[in-house]
Amino acid sequence: MLSGEGAQMNSVNRQVRLAARPVGLPKPSDWELTAEPVPAPGRGEFVVAVSYLSIDPVMRRLIDAAYREPVALGTVMEAGAVGRVTASEHPGFAVGEHVYGGFGVQEFACSDGTGVTRIDPLLGPLPAYLGALGIPGLTAYFGLLEVGRLREGETVVISGAAGGVGSVAGQIAKISRCRVIGIAGGPDKCRWIVSDLGFDAAIDYKAQDVAAALREYAPGGVDVFFDNVGGEVLDAVLSRLARGARIVLSGGLSQYAAQQARGPSNYLELIAARASMAGFLTPDYADRYDRARAELAGWLREGQLISREDILRGGVRAFPDALSKLFAGQNIGKLILAVQ
Amino acid sequence: MLSGEGAQMNSVNRQVRLAARPVGLPKPSDWELTAEPVPAPGRGEFVVAVSYLSIDPVMRRLIDAAYREPVALGTVMEAGAVGRVTASEHPGFAVGEHVYGGFGVQEFACSDGTGVTRIDPLLGPLPAYLGALGIPGLTAYFGLLEVGRLREGETVVISGAAGGVGSVAGQIAKISRCRVIGIAGGPDKCRWIVSDLGFDAAIDYKAQDVAAALREYAPGGVDVFFDNVGGEVLDAVLSRLARGARIVLSGGLSQYAAQQARGPSNYLELIAARASMAGFLTPDYADRYDRARAELAGWLREGQLISREDILRGGVRAFPDALSKLFAGQNIGKLILAVQ
Repeated sequence: MLSGEGAQMNSVNRQVRLAARPVGLPKPSDWELTAEPVPAPGRGEFVVAVSYLSIDPVMRRLIDAAYREPVALGTVMEAGAVGRVTASEHPGFAVGEHVYGGFGVQEFACSDGTGVTRIDPLLGPLPAYLGALGIPGLTAYFGLLEVGRLREGETVVISGAAGGVGSVAGQIAKISRCRVIGIAGGPDKCRWIVSDLGFDAAIDYKAQDVAAALREYAPGGVDVFFDNVGGEVLDAVLSRLARGARIVLSGGLSQYAAQQARGPSNYLELIAARASMAGFLTPDYADRYDRARAELAGWLREGQLISREDILRGGVRAFPDALSKLFAGQNIGKLILAVQ
Repeated sequence: MLSGEGAQMNSVNRQVRLAARPVGLPKPSDWELTAEPVPAPGRGEFVVAVSYLSIDPVMRRLIDAAYREPVALGTVMEAGAVGRVTASEHPGFAVGEHVYGGFGVQEFACSDGTGVTRIDPLLGPLPAYLGALGIPGLTAYFGLLEVGRLREGETVVISGAAGGVGSVAGQIAKISRCRVIGIAGGPDKCRWIVSDLGFDAAIDYKAQDVAAALREYAPGGVDVFFDNVGGEVLDAVLSRLARGARIVLSGGLSQYAAQQARGPSNYLELIAARASMAGFLTPDYADRYDRARAELAGWLREGQLISREDILRGGVRAFPDALSKLFAGQNIGKLILAVQ
């Protein structure tokens, strides 16, 4: 990886733009690699050299025609990223500072500061700001503790448990003294969340009957389900709810690329269980990020929380491959693309 | 209709028992009409002559093999009912008193008082205790006000709006100074809920595109959706949620007889809208029934609330027909079967 100064000498800004709306999973021809001169900041702006890009399930949804405000064809793909300020005409951001923002799939981004936060490299390594100290960690934190109203001693189920959000969510539930069951695909992920992260049990949805396994691991029913995937897994958990259960909708990975999304056919189980299913968006909690991040960083330092990043190399041109890896479920931990 | 005393002279208790588990909608051969001597109360028991039976969508669910505790084959079909005590060896219930309870589809029931409440014929007519003053009214009341946390000025959508629960729910929302849109099947029901009940608008789901109509009637989105039907209507409303919307799951009429229940494929809209979907069971609020019923009775007296009952004659032997009428959506207001 080039240092920030090295990157600044690069005069070309490579970008990945949306070329076509994908049908099903995105394929390489849905993307176009373009190059532009590195921008110069105007008054009130600054330029960031992007270091790491976050590769997220929701990206599939952002490019879907059915989404509320989809990424427009021909524009740079949206992505959260961390980087370093290389030029600035903005009073609030100085050259050399590290920042997080929606910089997109490109090597350099020009910003007026909207939605950009300064990050402290002393609190944790840069990639962790796309993992446990970033949106995934904050999503797990506010989703479980605020939306899910998690209480000590409850039985918690996490789907996508070896992913960027799920792995943090399960660990927060353990820290909150809950019984935690993770659902993930394949023996490697299942082993990791139990052995390394301390989950009480793991269910391999590719090899096991999820509802039957829940009957064994959560005989009293599920109090909180933190769902990242939807589909059949959601239906299985709906059939095993405890009274007053809360389902936290963090995402629906299995449904994002579906031609015809599959609704949870067991949704009426919410009635008998007096249960609820709620959606949320992490940025609504932005005014509490600092305190949450300090708590997450504390757990990281004390070793109670492990932030694992699965960092791919290859720069922005590797973006289509990175997305394919994500939807194939091949990452363990938060999937990140190193840019420069 | 015979008076209570006349009924008591009748020595035969006709009953409707579940003969076979229906596939799809129940058909006449799924039921068996049986007769027994009228029971005599044992110590701590009393006998009720059933006057009116409540005919409810949830009955289909109660007889489904997939239900948690389905009605067993060969037993008297469960049903809520009002009646009059004709014999008593119970210190808490005297001959001549009117009561509500789960007396089942039969002319006489013997009870130890479990789940039975005395009702006051001066507060409202007997059939109203299966309508606005009964479980349907209480379901509308607690569902909207407690589960839905309805606030003045919000936009409320009610499905099954001309049914026993929906018609009361819409009127409670109007009393709460909300904008109310009802969804019902056919012009008669739509006319009734607007002209007689004061809903602000009606959508005929059989003739109109529900999502398109909601765009017109609820341009700012739906704050509270009180759902009695599920299916395509639920999906349409999910696509029109306002931020922070609450979906109250009162029932899923359209799904109860489905071979393969259809989940709401738009459920991920709950995320973007920061919305929730919650189930509840009315009996959880039993300790507050008295106060709620007093409030409902007050609205009835003042003419702010109309309780319409669609009362079928024919006694218990007409039960299969009554259920068919319900699932054909032919009732306006609460469907009730007069027994004797």
